[in-house]
Amino acid sequence: MEITIIGTGNMAPGIATRALAGGHTVTLLGTAAEKAEQLAGELSGDVRTGSVGDPLAGDVVVLAVWYQAVDDVLDRYRDQLAGKVVVDITNPVDPQTYQPLTLEAGSAAQEIAQKAGSAKVVKAFNTTFAATLVAGEVAGQPLDVFVASDDEDAKDAVRALADGAGLRVVDAGPLATARQVEGLGYLHMAIQGSLGTGYDTAIKVLP
Amino acid sequence: MEITIIGTGNMAPGIATRALAGGHTVTLLGTAAEKAEQLAGELSGDVRTGSVGDPLAGDVVVLAVWYQAVDDVLDRYRDQLAGKVVVDITNPVDPQTYQPLTLEAGSAAQEIAQKAGSAKVVKAFNTTFAATLVAGEVAGQPLDVFVASDDEDAKDAVRALADGAGLRVVDAGPLATARQVEGLGYLHMAIQGSLGTGYDTAIKVLP
Repeated sequence: MEITIIGTGNMAPGIATRALAGGHTVTLLGTAAEKAEQLAGELSGDVRTGSVGDPLAGDVVVLAVWYQAVDDVLDRYRDQLAGKVVVDITNPVDPQTYQPLTLEAGSAAQEIAQKAGSAKVVKAFNTTFAATLVAGEVAGQPLDVFVASDDEDAKDAVRALADGAGLRVVDAGPLATARQVEGLGYLHMAIQGSLGTGYDTAIKVLP
Repeated sequence: MEITIIGTGNMAPGIATRALAGGHTVTLLGTAAEKAEQLAGELSGDVRTGSVGDPLAGDVVVLAVWYQAVDDVLDRYRDQLAGKVVVDITNPVDPQTYQPLTLEAGSAAQEIAQKAGSAKVVKAFNTTFAATLVAGEVAGQPLDVFVASDDEDAKDAVRALADGAGLRVVDAGPLATARQVEGLGYLHMAIQGSLGTGYDTAIKVLP
């Protein structure tokens, strides 16, 4: 697959590393092209770079930006996203307080689906921390990737990405379940302090 | 501790087994006293039985009933619950469709706290399935018990119960986080079909 990752924050190298491990082609688009180039230099595999605003290559687009930046991306790419698999990895929190936002649509993923009606939106990778994606595992266990979507193509794309990368997909059902998947993403962040961990944990369904 | 469990459904033996394993005293209250007696006969340890309506013994009360039955319990016991630790294990779903209910209070636990203002409400044991509580572990790993409360006594009580029973408490923070903890309880149920599992899994934070 050709996978375009929009954003060059800490989640981009995590997802790019997994995608490249699976033999996929990755294009990194940054608001600063230099940041994308720098990131690409730290990765191994078929990785290309560009600027946000460049035409989208391939069929899978990962929105690796803060929830608050999603609208800008949708405004810029709305037409090009039609028919593409759009992977929403956001956890909608207030950037000042880190408290979870209550969204009328039920979740960020459902909001994106409403705004980009002809995109195939899938919630995924919002419960897996950046460093654990780079490593691909925690405590010798493959990461679980909770996936919610109303579109089977979109789920298949994430499954193909996960399978090639040594991760396990947990099918959480329809896009409406993104609400609970986003709740889990928030919970996973919220417990870091009491656990004394540093965003290096994984939510796993055992066995 | 003296722990009273209200309800004789499938969660009662799970929680009772863990509490008894930790050396605590358990009283089972059933709408049918016979059901409580039958259950007690299958357990080992200091276990007593009675009927819903009997005076509450001890400082910890577990509401091991469906969300829809909570109001009846609160109506009956409101005065006696004052100052006690009340453990809410419910996952609020529509009993016909199993879809999650949207509650104005944010969560069942917050709703209970509003209705029983002087009780020390704690959310716990809603993400751990009955059979796994009886066993006490999954795949050789101790169960994680997500705990949310605004009351430290209430968290300490659940921690004491969990520690003695070989479980691990994951402190999820204030009672407001019960919203996400209940979302996780729903998600854990919702993925059973796609995983092909039979409510014998555990949500674990690794490592």
